[in-house]
Amino acid sequence: MVNETQHTCGASSSSKSDGGSSSGSESSKDSSRCSTPVLDADRHERLREKMRRRQDSGDKWFSLEFFPPRTANAAVNLISRFDRMGAGGPLFIDVTWHPAGDPGSDKETSSMIIANTAVNYCGLETILHMTCCNQTRDDITRHLQKAKRLGLKNIMALRGDPVGEEWEEEVDGFNYAVDLVKHIRNEFDDYFDICVAGYPTGHPEAESYEEDLKYLKEKVFAGADFIITQLFFRSETFFKFMKDCQAIGITCPIIPGIFPIQGYHSLRQLVKLSKLEVPQEIKDVIEPIKDNDAAIRNYGVELAVSMCRELLDSGMVHGLHFYTLNREVATTEVLKRLGIWKEDPRRPLPWAVSAHPKRRVEDVRPIFWASRPKSYIYRTQEWDDFPNGRWGNSSSPAFGELKDYYLFYLKSKSPREELLKMWGEELTCEESVFEVFTSYITGEPNKNGYKVTCMPWNDDPLATETNLLKEQLEKVNRRGILTINSQPNINGKPSTDPIVGWGPSGGYVFQKAYLEFFTSSEIVTALLKVLKKYELRVNYHIVNVKGQNITNAPDLQPNAVTWGIFPGREIIQPTVVDPVSFLSWKDEAFALWIEQWAKLYEEESPSRMIIQYIHDNYYLVNLVDNDFPLENCLWQVVDDTFELLN
Amino acid sequence: MVNETQHTCGASSSSKSDGGSSSGSESSKDSSRCSTPVLDADRHERLREKMRRRQDSGDKWFSLEFFPPRTANAAVNLISRFDRMGAGGPLFIDVTWHPAGDPGSDKETSSMIIANTAVNYCGLETILHMTCCNQTRDDITRHLQKAKRLGLKNIMALRGDPVGEEWEEEVDGFNYAVDLVKHIRNEFDDYFDICVAGYPTGHPEAESYEEDLKYLKEKVFAGADFIITQLFFRSETFFKFMKDCQAIGITCPIIPGIFPIQGYHSLRQLVKLSKLEVPQEIKDVIEPIKDNDAAIRNYGVELAVSMCRELLDSGMVHGLHFYTLNREVATTEVLKRLGIWKEDPRRPLPWAVSAHPKRRVEDVRPIFWASRPKSYIYRTQEWDDFPNGRWGNSSSPAFGELKDYYLFYLKSKSPREELLKMWGEELTCEESVFEVFTSYITGEPNKNGYKVTCMPWNDDPLATETNLLKEQLEKVNRRGILTINSQPNINGKPSTDPIVGWGPSGGYVFQKAYLEFFTSSEIVTALLKVLKKYELRVNYHIVNVKGQNITNAPDLQPNAVTWGIFPGREIIQPTVVDPVSFLSWKDEAFALWIEQWAKLYEEESPSRMIIQYIHDNYYLVNLVDNDFPLENCLWQVVDDTFELLN
Repeated sequence: MVNETQHTCGASSSSKSDGGSSSGSESSKDSSRCSTPVLDADRHERLREKMRRRQDSGDKWFSLEFFPPRTANAAVNLISRFDRMGAGGPLFIDVTWHPAGDPGSDKETSSMIIANTAVNYCGLETILHMTCCNQTRDDITRHLQKAKRLGLKNIMALRGDPVGEEWEEEVDGFNYAVDLVKHIRNEFDDYFDICVAGYPTGHPEAESYEEDLKYLKEKVFAGADFIITQLFFRSETFFKFMKDCQAIGITCPIIPGIFPIQGYHSLRQLVKLSKLEVPQEIKDVIEPIKDNDAAIRNYGVELAVSMCRELLDSGMVHGLHFYTLNREVATTEVLKRLGIWKEDPRRPLPWAVSAHPKRRVEDVRPIFWASRPKSYIYRTQEWDDFPNGRWGNSSSPAFGELKDYYLFYLKSKSPREELLKMWGEELTCEESVFEVFTSYITGEPNKNGYKVTCMPWNDDPLATETNLLKEQLEKVNRRGILTINSQPNINGKPSTDPIVGWGPSGGYVFQKAYLEFFTSSEIVTALLKVLKKYELRVNYHIVNVKGQNITNAPDLQPNAVTWGIFPGREIIQPTVVDPVSFLSWKDEAFALWIEQWAKLYEEESPSRMIIQYIHDNYYLVNLVDNDFPLENCLWQVVDDTFELLN
Repeated sequence: MVNETQHTCGASSSSKSDGGSSSGSESSKDSSRCSTPVLDADRHERLREKMRRRQDSGDKWFSLEFFPPRTANAAVNLISRFDRMGAGGPLFIDVTWHPAGDPGSDKETSSMIIANTAVNYCGLETILHMTCCNQTRDDITRHLQKAKRLGLKNIMALRGDPVGEEWEEEVDGFNYAVDLVKHIRNEFDDYFDICVAGYPTGHPEAESYEEDLKYLKEKVFAGADFIITQLFFRSETFFKFMKDCQAIGITCPIIPGIFPIQGYHSLRQLVKLSKLEVPQEIKDVIEPIKDNDAAIRNYGVELAVSMCRELLDSGMVHGLHFYTLNREVATTEVLKRLGIWKEDPRRPLPWAVSAHPKRRVEDVRPIFWASRPKSYIYRTQEWDDFPNGRWGNSSSPAFGELKDYYLFYLKSKSPREELLKMWGEELTCEESVFEVFTSYITGEPNKNGYKVTCMPWNDDPLATETNLLKEQLEKVNRRGILTINSQPNINGKPSTDPIVGWGPSGGYVFQKAYLEFFTSSEIVTALLKVLKKYELRVNYHIVNVKGQNITNAPDLQPNAVTWGIFPGREIIQPTVVDPVSFLSWKDEAFALWIEQWAKLYEEESPSRMIIQYIHDNYYLVNLVDNDFPLENCLWQVVDDTFELLN
């Protein structure tokens, strides 16, 4: 909203009832016999209901505002920021609308696509801003339809900036935010939750503060569900605004917009655009330290924390909205000091749940994409429904092909130069590849002194859970069992366990040990001999890039490898080893050797040929130890294999 | 087949390929993403495939033939016999067709309804005999359509007895079994598995043994899948027959029909009807002991065992078909001595699976009907599909009303006089009801010296599993917590455990402790106070006949209380406590007080009024202890309740 400098001041009037108190959730209606158990109430609620529930329970919340980036690389970075800041537990994020940036297009930097990515790939409840000024009714309807299709459920309705100095109302056009609110309610009924902007000191273009409040009331009565305010510098400003709103009958939630001062330049620019006045006491502090960025940020954090405390302590405020300016440090710091950043938010499932309404019942996924959830979401985006409660026969729904490895939300966060430092400027033999895998596992720098913090199959450092297996993993990778996915067995740990826990409290979680790796045909030959001894205990699937497929699974049934038992609920089995989808995963896993690694090197170069050789000749193996109450036997299987080879 | 005295000898000819080798199972095609995990291969196979699989694995099997009874009471007894003999693990049973007994009607004694009950309520693979003689094409088609609709999948195609002495072929009529085989294949394609009769010594009406073999070949080539033979007295008779069949190109399975001699009279009658000759050496033994039933039966068992051993040892025979004459002892004895009666057949699920094709994916049921599975099947017979893999929201499918407590397969096996002896000729107070419950639990005789072997909610003695809880159950029943269902908690016992195990081997089974009982409002008041202490651990539902419903379950989600983890499979959760279906069960459970107990007494009698009082005023309570890895706390809950009352 900071980037929307001039917001609407509604002029037309409406007596429609306050949308904020309307109900009729679309979420609770369409349950069927085959529906998923409700693991997390959040997943079945609309934003306005979540807000009300948090308010009722006295549980303070926060939200985060971002603007779309200018370049594709910046978009990749913003998406990782979504993931990191999403971990703190925002109630929602919002993405501003940039009329100049083709905001409704399919560009990776458009408002629409950034919001789409936040919802679908990062699992964040998201509000998409939309302005109506200088747009046709058809354009707006088209944008809204597209937003709905993409799974967006919330719109911030704004006027936007008129083009040109002398702005005049268009007859029958969208001149004010209230027109957009009405249009959304007319065309889309109650589908969207609608947010509107409030101006604690009045809109700069409004005739008066009182006039502006009337316009706000019109927006709310036209069907808006809640209000987010423009930034302000003193808590009293907000308290007065809130009381004035209530006095004229505005009863919906009003969320204060918080702007932690992050730098001298950004503050000046903001002030210019928003026509707000910075209080003298703030100017007095800032002017002398204007060249010291760190000092200004520290001051900004202090200021924001103390104002937020006043707001929260008043009992009138239940949530805080942060203008992040797409930056991480200041806002995170404020949230942590306020104690509303959730260091360890309860995971409803072992993997991050997508926020697309179509996927809200999704509660089982194949284990293979554990480190590439965005790729899984991408490849299943055309599915009409999601395995609900059980995976069953996955052969009918086709996995989308993953041809474009350069989809921005699937791209590595690290640039080519960094990857080369991690994975080797020059590879001399297969063993130099083993070393890369080993460095990734150990976290120790490679022989050139660089830490390997990502791999083609995993753009993040090792999961905490995998750390439990570190010692064994290091040993086997060193010898050419190149692991890309694993989990330990778990026999009934509390669902609140900080490392392996998930789901509601009071439950117990379980896992079968899992190990997935690339390895040479020589090792596979020995492994298969060893596996005969474990025939009744270990299930295996061994495939190569040509499609050879060796398995002891008697049929194409999935094997549940993560499940949870909870009070008063059905069993949840969120992760399966599914033989059918493994073949789709296999194509992706092998392709990553080439797309992400081999292509770092010149064609025909020895380094490239080594990766190509591995791609062409290695096998991808997965192993499940079914006897979860006993000690994991997979390490013994691998040890026996090495022994046989010696 | 013994009751079909004169079987067909096919006359028309056909060159259709041998149905025995045709394939195209309907079972494997219609899997969907939401399908159930294959727990038991048996459930997805046609009879002919099961037969082939057992032959391939060298696993000898047996089958049992029954005829429809004459009276409704006899039908009730036959159904219990199905349950008892079904426990020995027959590959199938067959039910003969009685043209004189309105065999296709809805009478409880008709062939059709007896076969229907065997399939749907006893979970037995069943062959329905059908004769074609003296029936119109339309009649036959109607019978077959009805059989299909009821879930019957196998037909034994016979000619049947012509009416009158001088039988003449009808033009275009069904004159021979082969006509029926062709008709079934024409009208129902490959839906039914078809069995035909073979005569080891030739059909009595056939021109010659060789002619008869030719007719048999015609039946097979017209589409029959296998042959069951008429009885014979010497294994050589069968071996010769089998070789002769093979010599003329009959390759389908040929199953020897075994008739253990059970009495002098029945043997004589059989011989008369079947026109078979009893060998002199048998006559020589029997004649001197003809008045000693026990001696004859012992001899018959000896004879059958030794002939069956010869058959099985030959390697030519993989299964044995028994003409039981609806009797249990002799056949069971023979099977046990042969070692093919399975004392403890592996349970694929904790409850008996129905054999109706529509229900073959059924793998979850509410716990409430655990002791009344036939009632559950009856009340859900109109359901189009079955909760597959998960129960989900059960509110959509309506439970059928159980108005007719006199449905023969739901009727108590015990007559009124016996029930009065068990449950009291005269009740004087509520405590005398407590005593009945207590006697049922302890297995000790009541004060009149009678053992209480059934209750209105359970027509069988206490389950082995419940025996684990006997001591506690006795204590609480004595004090007016009248238990009707319970299970202990289980934290990962092997799936092969003889008492609580089920499902494929190599797995682990789990349970949450469950307790369900009727009790007074006084006890409920105290119980509710106690339950506050257990709020996070124990889920409860407390209802009365008027519909009062007290629960701490946060929503209408089912609670899984039995589940199993198996190698290479998804989780199976076959039993749930479902709040929605509990309300349907409640009606049934309360009604049983009146229908089965109160109505034993005169109207207005004190005994009847006591039961009526309990029906009107008591509550039905169920409790689940969610903390399955800890010691069951439900007894503590009950103890605390009694303590509070003191």
